[in-house]
Amino acid sequence: MAIPRVVESEIRVRYAETDAEGVVYYANHFVYMEVARVNYLRALGLNRALWDKAGWGIVIIEASCRYHAPAHFDDLLRMRAWVDEVRGSSFAFRYELLNADTGRRLAEGRTLQVFVNLHTMRPTRLPPDVRDKLQAEGPGASGATAVSSEA
Amino acid sequence: MAIPRVVESEIRVRYAETDAEGVVYYANHFVYMEVARVNYLRALGLNRALWDKAGWGIVIIEASCRYHAPAHFDDLLRMRAWVDEVRGSSFAFRYELLNADTGRRLAEGRTLQVFVNLHTMRPTRLPPDVRDKLQAEGPGASGATAVSSEA
Amino acid sequence: MAIPRVVESEIRVRYAETDAEGVVYYANHFVYMEVARVNYLRALGLNRALWDKAGWGIVIIEASCRYHAPAHFDDLLRMRAWVDEVRGSSFAFRYELLNADTGRRLAEGRTLQVFVNLHTMRPTRLPPDVRDKLQAEGPGASGATAVSSEA
Amino acid sequence: MAIPRVVESEIRVRYAETDAEGVVYYANHFVYMEVARVNYLRALGLNRALWDKAGWGIVIIEASCRYHAPAHFDDLLRMRAWVDEVRGSSFAFRYELLNADTGRRLAEGRTLQVFVNLHTMRPTRLPPDVRDKLQAEGPGASGATAVSSEA
Repeated sequence: MAIPRVVESEIRVRYAETDAEGVVYYANHFVYMEVARVNYLRALGLNRALWDKAGWGIVIIEASCRYHAPAHFDDLLRMRAWVDEVRGSSFAFRYELLNADTGRRLAEGRTLQVFVNLHTMRPTRLPPDVRDKLQAEGPGASGATAVSSEA
Repeated sequence: MAIPRVVESEIRVRYAETDAEGVVYYANHFVYMEVARVNYLRALGLNRALWDKAGWGIVIIEASCRYHAPAHFDDLLRMRAWVDEVRGSSFAFRYELLNADTGRRLAEGRTLQVFVNLHTMRPTRLPPDVRDKLQAEGPGASGATAVSSEA
Repeated sequence: MAIPRVVESEIRVRYAETDAEGVVYYANHFVYMEVARVNYLRALGLNRALWDKAGWGIVIIEASCRYHAPAHFDDLLRMRAWVDEVRGSSFAFRYELLNADTGRRLAEGRTLQVFVNLHTMRPTRLPPDVRDKLQAEGPGASGATAVSSEA
Repeated sequence: MAIPRVVESEIRVRYAETDAEGVVYYANHFVYMEVARVNYLRALGLNRALWDKAGWGIVIIEASCRYHAPAHFDDLLRMRAWVDEVRGSSFAFRYELLNADTGRRLAEGRTLQVFVNLHTMRPTRLPPDVRDKLQAEGPGASGATAVSSEA
């Protein structure tokens, strides 16, 4: 089985993202997934800003995370994202969050998002070029890893 | 089968919680779950501040959400929480997020949290009184609904 | 000199709002000011949702905060807000954040916001009824204190 | 008069940071200032993680921002930070937020922070080496601009 293409994003933990237990607050992992997702789409040449102008949007309909170990202030994290599934009007990403210095796996997650018409807010079929790009990168695709810093 | 005891929390959507699509950003539903979780524990007389002093903490190890409809700025939301499962050192909550005015269900979620010793950060068995209270409220328990505003 | 009319909002500190020093992160005081501002305008019958439909918006152009003492998880806070100044197309609020249980003053702040046409994003003169209401409540006005919980 | 030494941080706007008006929510500019502040101290070799171990901390006692133009999702921002003032136990930074692509100035801010003993939470005099480094970089210092991406 081929390895799905992965896009990696580096994220430095901000003080704002920590909580009183001294670790990254659990909801912020979903913000990190967003950073990874946007970088993934950018790496595919799928620009959300262009989508907005075309009247298309992405709406998250499912999100989940399993937490293995905490992240701390100023840690450098590496968020890995890849396409998990492509359907008619939706697609899923999987994510893996690592401590970039130690390589330790901190969390893994998944989001399922639907492609919508922003005027009607109804699901709409993925445009063929988007669908093709996501499928080419998805399960079964072979490929290298692209690395992207957040900025 | 008896109905699990439910604690309801009212939450007014803040502008800070919306995003450029004009709806509540998907990670903030996990913040709302925290508000509901804290109110649930408070309703049971389980005070997190006391736990901190005793050297106990809660660490979320799994979190998930399914989004059915968007919430908007200034919407009054009702977050319902109940105990889903109690194990030796962990327990799970389920949540349901409704628009308080229309009754429409906006999202449902689940978190699994482990009880830890804050010094070692290792899982520790639930103290018997905590375990008893959670189980009394959990699946199979009969009971009324308690309502709590956030403040 | 008369006492300005004050609207008070009660806010319960969320775990999400704390940071690794165990206190409310400094940017979140500006979120609390937003809660107070929205409640103030609601108390005046000035509904931001209606403004949106009318094509009007508020844009913050200055914000400041002085921090006197920290707020902690689960603290019940009282945010007091009042009109500080009303100009042709802008108005300022002042805020005072107290611990609701001890009465201790934790912070004080100010925001200056301009009334804009959302289509052009240009400043526009305050509608006479809005201006009148804000001035009636502003410096020099006498009046009671209204209390509002966040939800 | 010499030009103060400036440290620049690049920040990519996250969707999480936008609000329903389609722009970066006003409190998030203070989070960006934190990113700039941490990068500034890192550039000086002053590591906050080390301070924590030594029992020192920084507490913000004043923060302010003037907003000139909005930032939008996916904008690449450049946050410039420099030392504005150094006193016995406190020091101030000034900030300037630019759109990195157009060079347009979006906001300017200032924070005043006090150096504290984390055990007593009382102000404590800046250690001589910290004081010297901050003063060498502060008003009147000449020097180049250091650039740092967030990650």
